[in-house]
Amino acid sequence: MRIALGLQYDGSPYAGWQLQPNQITVQGELEKALTAFLGAQACKASPVSTITAGRTDAGVHALGQVIHFDTHVEREDFSWVRGVNSYLPNSIVVNWAKVVPDEFSARFSAYERTYIYALHAGPCRSPMMNQRAGYVMLPPNVWFDVDAMMAAAQCLIGEHDFSAFRSSECQSNTPVKTMYSIEIISDEPWLYFRIRGSAFLHHMVRNLVGSFLQIGRGKQKPEWMGQLLESKNRQLAAPTFMPDGLYLSKIAYPEEFAIPAPWLENSWLPAVVIER
Amino acid sequence: MRIALGLQYDGSPYAGWQLQPNQITVQGELEKALTAFLGAQACKASPVSTITAGRTDAGVHALGQVIHFDTHVEREDFSWVRGVNSYLPNSIVVNWAKVVPDEFSARFSAYERTYIYALHAGPCRSPMMNQRAGYVMLPPNVWFDVDAMMAAAQCLIGEHDFSAFRSSECQSNTPVKTMYSIEIISDEPWLYFRIRGSAFLHHMVRNLVGSFLQIGRGKQKPEWMGQLLESKNRQLAAPTFMPDGLYLSKIAYPEEFAIPAPWLENSWLPAVVIER
Repeated sequence: MRIALGLQYDGSPYAGWQLQPNQITVQGELEKALTAFLGAQACKASPVSTITAGRTDAGVHALGQVIHFDTHVEREDFSWVRGVNSYLPNSIVVNWAKVVPDEFSARFSAYERTYIYALHAGPCRSPMMNQRAGYVMLPPNVWFDVDAMMAAAQCLIGEHDFSAFRSSECQSNTPVKTMYSIEIISDEPWLYFRIRGSAFLHHMVRNLVGSFLQIGRGKQKPEWMGQLLESKNRQLAAPTFMPDGLYLSKIAYPEEFAIPAPWLENSWLPAVVIER
Repeated sequence: MRIALGLQYDGSPYAGWQLQPNQITVQGELEKALTAFLGAQACKASPVSTITAGRTDAGVHALGQVIHFDTHVEREDFSWVRGVNSYLPNSIVVNWAKVVPDEFSARFSAYERTYIYALHAGPCRSPMMNQRAGYVMLPPNVWFDVDAMMAAAQCLIGEHDFSAFRSSECQSNTPVKTMYSIEIISDEPWLYFRIRGSAFLHHMVRNLVGSFLQIGRGKQKPEWMGQLLESKNRQLAAPTFMPDGLYLSKIAYPEEFAIPAPWLENSWLPAVVIER
């Protein structure tokens, strides 16, 4: 039987999603909790392996992560939620569980992923937003040129080779991805990027955000984004921006699977961002 | 010369405001940074002592803390801000600095203190809000009786002996304080308390919040709050509620001192709470 789970986590204490030897990872904590829950249910507790929709990087958060695993154990949906949560640290939470058909894959059935990048900018850091939002120091009464960033975003929409924004460690078998939309929401002292695509390369969103901010600060013209894209050269784009403000917010699946919506309203993100 | 500073901090890594031997405290970190800044300025770096408007407890945050200290060193206001911030951890930030007259005291000139308590409630914790908001587990489609809590709040307004909500460790020389207002803002899955008073006893806000929630969950009638107050008996009120969601948000001083407003818009708190 195949079970899908909806997850949220604070990525700041973890070395990313993926299992790694001698590192504390979200996948490691989740599989330990699943195995412990099954063990506590007096079934044979063979280790549980999970497949994820998006392997988030170190320090990156998730509000709408989806994973699946296979098991012989039958439980009510709410029992998976409560039971697994009781074995998880407070930084990882299961929001829902659902039996799905065997042809469902959290990874391969997904047709769209949405990331939100939350940025705080101003003369002083906000201590409450450490590891919750990115930060750029701006002098008083200075703000980003949002129109320039929006103009720059247009050239990224559609199917493109995103090699210019791809980390050298990327394991994707192609640099060609489809970008569906980029929204930039300005709400001083906050700036939010909401980016939807078929899939993303390693560090792609953080490399895009870093490049947008060069344009938003007037250090580059809007046309620079198209030049970067065409160059396919990672050396030209901005450095990888900090992970602190990056949230995997939603994974979209075909309607037939009836995958529940993510619980965005329990994040700190304002309505202007989550209700779009 | 007397300098006032406006501060924000994430209280979660600290054993509270006040200096304590062998503990990491906000006052300890701030005084270390002030002393280092003065030393780096090649003046004699005698340790700096600070006086605060409100000695927040372990795990309690501040968005609008005000402190003062005396020094012979003259610097531009922005130089205090940038210089001291460069010696502070990211969890403590100076927002403004201002030369004040010698008769100003961050503690004794304050006539009103405002605390905000942010609570998240629902079937699952929000991992992003660990140590940022309190949490109460509620089943799906269940919410607090906000009218009952508002009715209960009325009896607390005005001058009262708040012994029923006073921790046994409280050092205040009187349990009599004046409550100016209690606002309860419901924005599912969030509940905010905004409480203004002349001053507060140790644990008073957390003890009040715990008691309000008993009423909001229907475990006690609204009249219970008045009975607690009259009893002056700490044994009868609810247990001290978790510090995670408590924010010292504003200290009010006479206008003549022209103390800057707190930077609430850079917290995660929504406009409905900070703009009241």
